Amino acid sequence: MRAVVLTEFGGPEVLRFADIPVPQPDAEEVLVAVRATALNRADLMQRMGLYPNPSPVEHDVPGLEFAGVVTAIGSRVREHAVGDAVMGIVSGGGYAEYLVVHERQAMRVPSNISVNDAAAIPEVFITAWDALVVQGGLTSGRIALVHAGASGVGTAGIQICKAIGARVVVTCSTGKVQACKNLGADLVIDYSTQDFVEEVKKFTGGKGVDTILDVIGGDYVDRNIASLALKGCIVQVGTMAGPPPAMNLGGLMFKRARLIGTVLRARPLDEKIAISQRFAAEMLPLFATGALKPVIDSRYEFSDIAIAHEHMAKNANAGKIVIDISR
Amino acid sequence: MRAVVLTEFGGPEVLRFADIPVPQPDAEEVLVAVRATALNRADLMQRMGLYPNPSPVEHDVPGLEFAGVVTAIGSRVREHAVGDAVMGIVSGGGYAEYLVVHERQAMRVPSNISVNDAAAIPEVFITAWDALVVQGGLTSGRIALVHAGASGVGTAGIQICKAIGARVVVTCSTGKVQACKNLGADLVIDYSTQDFVEEVKKFTGGKGVDTILDVIGGDYVDRNIASLALKGCIVQVGTMAGPPPAMNLGGLMFKRARLIGTVLRARPLDEKIAISQRFAAEMLPLFATGALKPVIDSRYEFSDIAIAHEHMAKNANAGKIVIDISR
Repeated sequence: MRAVVLTEFGGPEVLRFADIPVPQPDAEEVLVAVRATALNRADLMQRMGLYPNPSPVEHDVPGLEFAGVVTAIGSRVREHAVGDAVMGIVSGGGYAEYLVVHERQAMRVPSNISVNDAAAIPEVFITAWDALVVQGGLTSGRIALVHAGASGVGTAGIQICKAIGARVVVTCSTGKVQACKNLGADLVIDYSTQDFVEEVKKFTGGKGVDTILDVIGGDYVDRNIASLALKGCIVQVGTMAGPPPAMNLGGLMFKRARLIGTVLRARPLDEKIAISQRFAAEMLPLFATGALKPVIDSRYEFSDIAIAHEHMAKNANAGKIVIDISR
Repeated sequence: MRAVVLTEFGGPEVLRFADIPVPQPDAEEVLVAVRATALNRADLMQRMGLYPNPSPVEHDVPGLEFAGVVTAIGSRVREHAVGDAVMGIVSGGGYAEYLVVHERQAMRVPSNISVNDAAAIPEVFITAWDALVVQGGLTSGRIALVHAGASGVGTAGIQICKAIGARVVVTCSTGKVQACKNLGADLVIDYSTQDFVEEVKKFTGGKGVDTILDVIGGDYVDRNIASLALKGCIVQVGTMAGPPPAMNLGGLMFKRARLIGTVLRARPLDEKIAISQRFAAEMLPLFATGALKPVIDSRYEFSDIAIAHEHMAKNANAGKIVIDISR
């Protein structure tokens, strides 16, 4: 099969295609003919050698999510059959024509969404939902702050907040304000001209927000603490701006607030299964009703994946960058 | 009645006695003749004007905990009767011959502990248990790191860890090592000669500890993150060393760890009642069996309370400093 195999680290030019054997499913795994994968910022870090696959494999194929069709099943598989359209998160392997995955890690693609579009769902929707709701405690009636509102995780986060009856404030750059508004954000803060601490204060009547989903880090950490309501929670899913230069620890104490660090990819199989199963139960029905939908910024043919990486590096996308591997 | 009333802020000399009216219990309150109160570091901050009473009152009487005997009850009181020995946390008012408290905030003094000694229980045992167990998720089989092991909160924390079947590592200064060992600490780290990050690594075989109870802050924040196990939790109940100069946010993420800020005193009445009731259910039986006992460093007559403050400021106590108000 055709796959992108990393043999050295560097720029997009190291994304080279190779012919490697189609993997064989173990007893509890399904073999999936991948229709599409989608890019994540972690892919760029992995390509540069900054984020190795947590479970090393013979061929280092990047790609943290997939959507496709089951073409073979292991001997103990009970929940999927050949021909099922499935999607899911994986620790690597998405940049390939086939992959194997534990059957309980594979989620059924909602019938109203095309298999290729479904590749834009797993990583960002699971990440945003796990951070905001499962770990961050967001519920109906509460207010979230989602940074990088037009990113993949941001566009998923906005929709999830609205779908569960919460309000959502987002930050983004000038060119992405309208995209965030269109998704239903209650307040969009243009970080290039506005101070989000001040805007959050105004929007919440001084009370602050209950849950913050942050991929930025850096000086956002202290500003997040300043923007939190009593007993609020910051969930840190990225540190694009690096470590914080300072931190108001006393503020965290007196607000009785929590700062939670999290990553998805490094979790062991059992935890990936657990979060996928719970996501399938709590979030997939909302795709069926149309309350949630994948947000696709752009799509590339498999052979153009290096160009797709360059596009992501420019930070100009609103939503997911999908790679169509077959149709 | 005789009470310490703050009319200005400053050194121990501002702790002046005044005659003020005995408070009257509301319908759901009990009037308690205070036998003893105990000092907390927050008292020193309050005295210096750095930690005002969260619910301002006519006479600013410090004192965050008490033990005494019920001498009158409000019309709707159901759980206590005149003559009951009770103890509890309050937002202020402990430095007085009488105080009123909501009946569900008052806990029965275990029958094997003298009323005066019981004043050493509420604040530190509730703080340590709430931080380690309720918020920090410590359970049997896990390992805790408790900083300032010989402090009031530390001595309570060590006992709680052992009583619930957890292991506990503590840090303290040279002179307090033996006191911590006597309480049952599994490993005592002398911070003046040893690096706790290294010692924790050795003790846990590189795995790290599950829950950290920290009153220090400062550069301990980063060293705490370095000492944590995967999915571990730091509970910050003080910041004696000030805010952290730096923070390894990426480390927090990749360990999927949590940093929780907490304070007890600023909580509203309903939350103080909730934590007191749960503490009474889960921890008081362990005083009755002798698994937990108040650790009293020293005791002072009420009239010597300024001297007691000086003693606490020296940071030389191991356990609680009790103030006997009557016998």
